This record gives sequence, C-alpha cells and structure tokens, in this order.
Amino acid sequence: MRIRTDLLPQGSYAGEVVLLVDVLRSCTAAPILFDNGLARLSVTPSLRLARALAASEGSLLLGERGGMVPEGFNHGNSPAELRRLDLEGRTALMVSENLPKALPHLDGAREVLLASLYNAGAAARLAAHLASSTSVAIVCCGFGGQEDLDDAVAAGLLAAELRRVCGAAEPVGATRFAVGLLRAFPDPLAAFWQSVAGRYLRRLEHAEDLAVASLVSHSERVPRLVASEQAERGPVYRFEGAGVTNLA
Amino acid sequence: MRIRTDLLPQGSYAGEVVLLVDVLRSCTAAPILFDNGLARLSVTPSLRLARALAASEGSLLLGERGGMVPEGFNHGNSPAELRRLDLEGRTALMVSENLPKALPHLDGAREVLLASLYNAGAAARLAAHLASSTSVAIVCCGFGGQEDLDDAVAAGLLAAELRRVCGAAEPVGATRFAVGLLRAFPDPLAAFWQSVAGRYLRRLEHAEDLAVASLVSHSERVPRLVASEQAERGPVYRFEGAGVTNLA
Repeated sequence: MRIRTDLLPQGSYAGEVVLLVDVLRSCTAAPILFDNGLARLSVTPSLRLARALAASEGSLLLGERGGMVPEGFNHGNSPAELRRLDLEGRTALMVSENLPKALPHLDGAREVLLASLYNAGAAARLAAHLASSTSVAIVCCGFGGQEDLDDAVAAGLLAAELRRVCGAAEPVGATRFAVGLLRAFPDPLAAFWQSVAGRYLRRLEHAEDLAVASLVSHSERVPRLVASEQAERGPVYRFEGAGVTNLA
Repeated sequence: MRIRTDLLPQGSYAGEVVLLVDVLRSCTAAPILFDNGLARLSVTPSLRLARALAASEGSLLLGERGGMVPEGFNHGNSPAELRRLDLEGRTALMVSENLPKALPHLDGAREVLLASLYNAGAAARLAAHLASSTSVAIVCCGFGGQEDLDDAVAAGLLAAELRRVCGAAEPVGATRFAVGLLRAFPDPLAAFWQSVAGRYLRRLEHAEDLAVASLVSHSERVPRLVASEQAERGPVYRFEGAGVTNLA
C-alpha cells in the first residue's frame, strides 16, 4: 500500500482513491448527518445556489457565514448541534467554505470519500477496500487555502489507520510528517485547539465542535461522492453515506 | 511585515530575504561553528568535491553518510560534537544532504541566512533588518524532499521571533500552521523527537543533537550566503558568520 498525504490539494489525483479531510468541520458533520438518517448530502460553496436547489429538492439547508446561520437556513454546520437532529429519509444541502474549494482539485479521482477522526476507522477500511490496497491519497482541505494543523493531525490518524488495515505501507508526501504530528500529540484536541480553524471556532463560541471532532471512530458512515454538477451559479457535489460494516 | 513560510522550498524567492531552516542538523551546527571561531563555511552535497576543495583550501572536512564519518573527514555534522572544537581562524567544508538540496531553489533570493532555534533571535533580527521590515520568507528544507516536523516547529519559532521584532505581521503560506504547531508544543524537543530526521538521528545514537538543537537563541551568529559556485562536480555555497550584536 502506498499512502500519499498532501497538507493542501496539489498536483493530480487522476485514478486515485482520495480521503478528503476537513475535520473542522464539514467532514466531521457529514458522517453525523448520515448516522442521523440523512439519505443524501449535497455540498456547494454558493448560498444562492443552495437556496435555489433546496427549494426545488425539498432539502434542509445547512451552513454558516462568519459564524451566523444565513437567512432561510435550517441549521449551521456545528457537529455538536447536528448530532441532536433526526434526519430520517431527508436530504440536505450544506454550504461550506473549505470543502468545495478542495473538491475541484479532485477531478478525475476514482473515488472521493469524506474522512475525519469521527469516521476514521471506517474511512480507512473503505478506502483500502476500494483501492485494492494499492494506493490511497489523504488530502487536507486546510483553512483559507493554507495548511492547517487540525487537518494535518487528522491526516496522521487516517494514515495510521490505513497502515493498521493494510500492514506495511510506503509513505509519500507529507505522510510521515502527519504521522509524526499525531505521535507528538497524544490528544488531537490540543492540535485542534491551536489550529487556525480551531481558534476561529473558539472565538465564535463553538469550542464544543472541537471536542466532537476529536472523537475517534464513532461513526461507520463514510460519505462518498456519487455525482457532481456544474450549475449556472456554481458547482454542487452529491454524497451518499456508505456504510462499511460488511466489508470483506 | 509579511512573513511567508514554506514547509518545503516551492515557487520563486526572487528578491526575498530568506531564513533557510534545516534544524536537524546543519543549521544548528553552522552557528556553533562560527561561535567557535570558524572564518568561513562552505556547503556542498558532494563528498568528492568537498575532498578536492578541502585539499586546495586547507579546510576542515565535516560530514556524514549513513551516520558514519567518511574516510578522510575530520568530523561528522553533530552539533553536540562540534560544540567542543576550537576553530579559530579555520575554514570548513560541510557535506550535508538536505541543505544543498534546498539551496538551488533560492536562486535570485536577495539574502539567504541559515536559521534554527539555536540562533533564532539573532536570525530574526538580522532578517528583519535586511528586509527593512517588508517581507521575510522562512523556508524549511524538510527531510528527503518531504515536509518534516522539526523544521516546521523551528519555522514557527522563527515566525514568532520575527513578529516580536517587527510587531504586526501578515502571515502567508504555512506561517499560521507553524505558529500553531509551536503553541501546541510547549517543548520543541517533543517535535524533534517524533520528526523523521529526529527518529533517524536517534537510531544512530545522536539523541544529544536533538537536545542541542532545542536550545533557543544560544548564538548571535547568523550564517549568511556570500557566494555560490558551480564546480564541475557540483555546487558549493559559501557562508560567513554575521554577528548581529550591533544592529540598529
């Protein structure tokens, strides 16, 4: 197994199985939504597109701008808050900043899975299964186009999980960096606390989200990209929540 | 002041004042050599070139390959060992792996200074002085062409020192990542311990070098690139040890 880690999206991911990481917060929120019964999650960077699609599709609207829930939206992106919802059979549109910025870099990837600490074990098992144990790319979204500590330490944990699933692995790119980071932080929460994303969320009184994001392998759901569309107002990415309990 | 940090050399450094970081070990060893009286340090990736130049220039030979001091060399690159030498008026040729790999990326830089924790305060003051407080680039060498934790946490400390010297600073690239890393590691030695370079040195029983490399601002010497030459067998980079005690 070859494990490639990028602290920001870079280069080509053609043919790759990608674990995409935005641990604070979209990739922590996404498995929680599927755990709570969500049938499909769509992600877009555009508030206007989200509103238009939600109206036509009867979807919930999730998102924040500057820490506030925008007008007409049902909920923010707080995993701590989203954990309390019953979403059985619903669909949702999520407006997120860092995740939709990373997704265009993954054009041509064979599979795109959303991964975080919260679904780390399941994400690693599904990625290894889909990649037939040849190669997995762990791609961090970062914050505002720059590397961030929260995603880097999450990448380290995902790389460690992949190695546990596959045995020996060849580390490529920032994999050894990320694994070293994880070893140096006995508690990933300390890394989240000092990350740019974490400090931003703490200022907005969302510290509880950092605690939820530091829970390891609480979910067996792995959001998997099943379609992407280029609408007039921007792109939209469709995810389904693959369960991995019965993987061979 | 604009502070740009790159976890690996990338893009152009034309016109930039660069703090080049290879904390384990060449950029920790270099200020120590100048503290001990060295007049000039030359760095090259080639053992053969180093031997030829040392013979013609009457220089000491410093270097290692796979943890062993090569035949005909006077000393390895261990800062712990080099601290004990009297080098008054001598010149030295150092063979290092990661530093000479990074230097070709700095073509066109206005100034190149070697920086580590050991000369952090002086390196930050000299860089800010040379840059007239406009822009400094902190460039990590990494290990084997990949990001490494030791250089990243050292970059965080240098960024913090620069900010202390210059007041407000605009962080660019991985600066906030590196500063967050530093905040999360109260003792940088923990980062060195888990870095790829640190683990390599510990296997070679050079753990003492990690301890020396974690000393902060013990030297006022800042190795400054004064010339580079392209010899037939490879490049050679010449450094002098600028003292910064009397900076305005």
